[in-house]
Amino acid sequence: MDPLRWLANDYFDLNGLHVDVLEKPPTALEFSRLVHISRPVLIKGFKIAANSNLWTNEYLIERMGSRPISIAVTPNGRADAITTGPNNKLYFTEPCVEQMTMPDFLAKLSGNASHPQEGQSYDCETYYLQSQNGNLYSSRFFDGHDDGSSSPEFEPLRRDVPSEIPWCSQPLDRTPDAVNLWIGDGSSVSSIHSDPYENLYTVVRGEKSFTLLPPTEGWCLNERVYPYASYVRDPASSKLRLQLSAEETRVRWSSITDPNIPGALCDSAHPIHIVVKPGETLYLPAGWWHYVQQTGITVALNWWYDMEMRGPSWALLGFLRNMKDVPDGNEEEEVTTNETAQ
Amino acid sequence: MDPLRWLANDYFDLNGLHVDVLEKPPTALEFSRLVHISRPVLIKGFKIAANSNLWTNEYLIERMGSRPISIAVTPNGRADAITTGPNNKLYFTEPCVEQMTMPDFLAKLSGNASHPQEGQSYDCETYYLQSQNGNLYSSRFFDGHDDGSSSPEFEPLRRDVPSEIPWCSQPLDRTPDAVNLWIGDGSSVSSIHSDPYENLYTVVRGEKSFTLLPPTEGWCLNERVYPYASYVRDPASSKLRLQLSAEETRVRWSSITDPNIPGALCDSAHPIHIVVKPGETLYLPAGWWHYVQQTGITVALNWWYDMEMRGPSWALLGFLRNMKDVPDGNEEEEVTTNETAQ
Repeated sequence: MDPLRWLANDYFDLNGLHVDVLEKPPTALEFSRLVHISRPVLIKGFKIAANSNLWTNEYLIERMGSRPISIAVTPNGRADAITTGPNNKLYFTEPCVEQMTMPDFLAKLSGNASHPQEGQSYDCETYYLQSQNGNLYSSRFFDGHDDGSSSPEFEPLRRDVPSEIPWCSQPLDRTPDAVNLWIGDGSSVSSIHSDPYENLYTVVRGEKSFTLLPPTEGWCLNERVYPYASYVRDPASSKLRLQLSAEETRVRWSSITDPNIPGALCDSAHPIHIVVKPGETLYLPAGWWHYVQQTGITVALNWWYDMEMRGPSWALLGFLRNMKDVPDGNEEEEVTTNETAQ
Repeated sequence: MDPLRWLANDYFDLNGLHVDVLEKPPTALEFSRLVHISRPVLIKGFKIAANSNLWTNEYLIERMGSRPISIAVTPNGRADAITTGPNNKLYFTEPCVEQMTMPDFLAKLSGNASHPQEGQSYDCETYYLQSQNGNLYSSRFFDGHDDGSSSPEFEPLRRDVPSEIPWCSQPLDRTPDAVNLWIGDGSSVSSIHSDPYENLYTVVRGEKSFTLLPPTEGWCLNERVYPYASYVRDPASSKLRLQLSAEETRVRWSSITDPNIPGALCDSAHPIHIVVKPGETLYLPAGWWHYVQQTGITVALNWWYDMEMRGPSWALLGFLRNMKDVPDGNEEEEVTTNETAQ
């Protein structure tokens, strides 16, 4: 049998769809065991100031004032995703990043919330705060180089968010690589991908719905390589348009745009669905694939910790990534066309 | 590239031959990290009564008196190893297990110690206390069923050996599966094999020399399946003879009798050599292959803990075991003979 299929099947036979639910945060020793097991865990009762009903729109506006913040703008709510461009060619597409203020941003989300139709916002654009560059705390902070002159965009909200989670930092023996704020609504989705980080994801408001696959089932996602594009705002029309990359940048990404569509995944894939509600925290282990949807205006925080590179974990993730060919995402279609033509 | 070779090479590129040496035992949290990394660690300063120079021959004899103990006897010091039997056929061979007293056993070892020639003992037989069935503490003890009437053979030595190691039991969240006493000399070797246990191995007297391979390099050991045999003592001659199994029992075992012989292992194998001296403890992670030699009369203890079955560890070990065909250990030779004949 194909090695990747064998490992996926055996892993599933051993682990099933099991997800631990903890009624209170684990101790450092308990979390260390969870990292070794490397399965998702839903953790309740992780209390921080940010998730004590403090973060109303009014509070966020008051704290942030008129500071510029970076917002991802797309015509379809799909930032960092595969998009059809000119000549029906597929592109890995990054959003247009625009500077605005918190009041402006939240107003756009509010407008959007009254239009629950997914992928369609009030002005046919979707706004998502997803800068994910350590927008609350970055490695500069932990290295002691965050002197205030180069503080991240959401520095005024730091008072409500601990820079690290003691029961994570202790067992992992490190500080986070990045701590991020995420704000969006139901019109934004995150396409399925995986990160080489141990991820702690806390929902403050709204709901996040995760569709998860273990690293062993990554080959079911039919990764392809795509040319790179990004949305830019046309100065003349003020509309977003796709700008193709002049460089030969190619991005490896799953060709499955929505793993929840019946038949999208092969038989060996066993997706796990977890809804994370306010005050709840998801431990998303390194290498797990995740597709994320939101319900209503959703405010969340995440702590990314570098995963352990020593031992088998990193080597196993590399193996799972590298044992399958990753064809060109646009050539396959040509092949299909040829076959149809013949 | 072959998946097993790819994974072995990548694992080696990432981890090299690194072995941590700790000057004192780890905390529970530190050990939990070490289990996740799953690399061998040499631990100094793990002090128990047994390794405080208390366990002289005189003391062991005094404590054990005339209680019968089970000793593995072989003509060549190779218990649980591949042996050539009738018609040059290869067999996985278990030792003859004989009952004797501690004074008798130690006298045989002492005699042997004056004959440093490996594989040759005073009376052309090698004695090794290696019953490894929880001969100090078994799961019956931890389950509360060890009521004294069925105590293990070395119950009188328990006072000097803790039933569990706190900094292991806590992170692994379990009690040991077995705690064993091992006594032998330089004429006994343990053929290369792996166990699905987290293993803590403390040397009390003498020296143990470990040749280790990570689980990713198991395919370099050319496992084969062999018919089963055991040594029995012939009542008439009082000599050991090989008794072939009437049943169709077949045992899977490495065909490499000594991995330290130059050229025995393929290029992808990167053996690690560790000598464990009195007072030192080796953490041998689950699934690591080990070939073990001894220097002088060697007294040792080990604690076996069940490994974590949840998550990727067990699935990965199964994958590494099952992705390579395991041919018949005796058919290959026939093929070679045929080829030579042609």
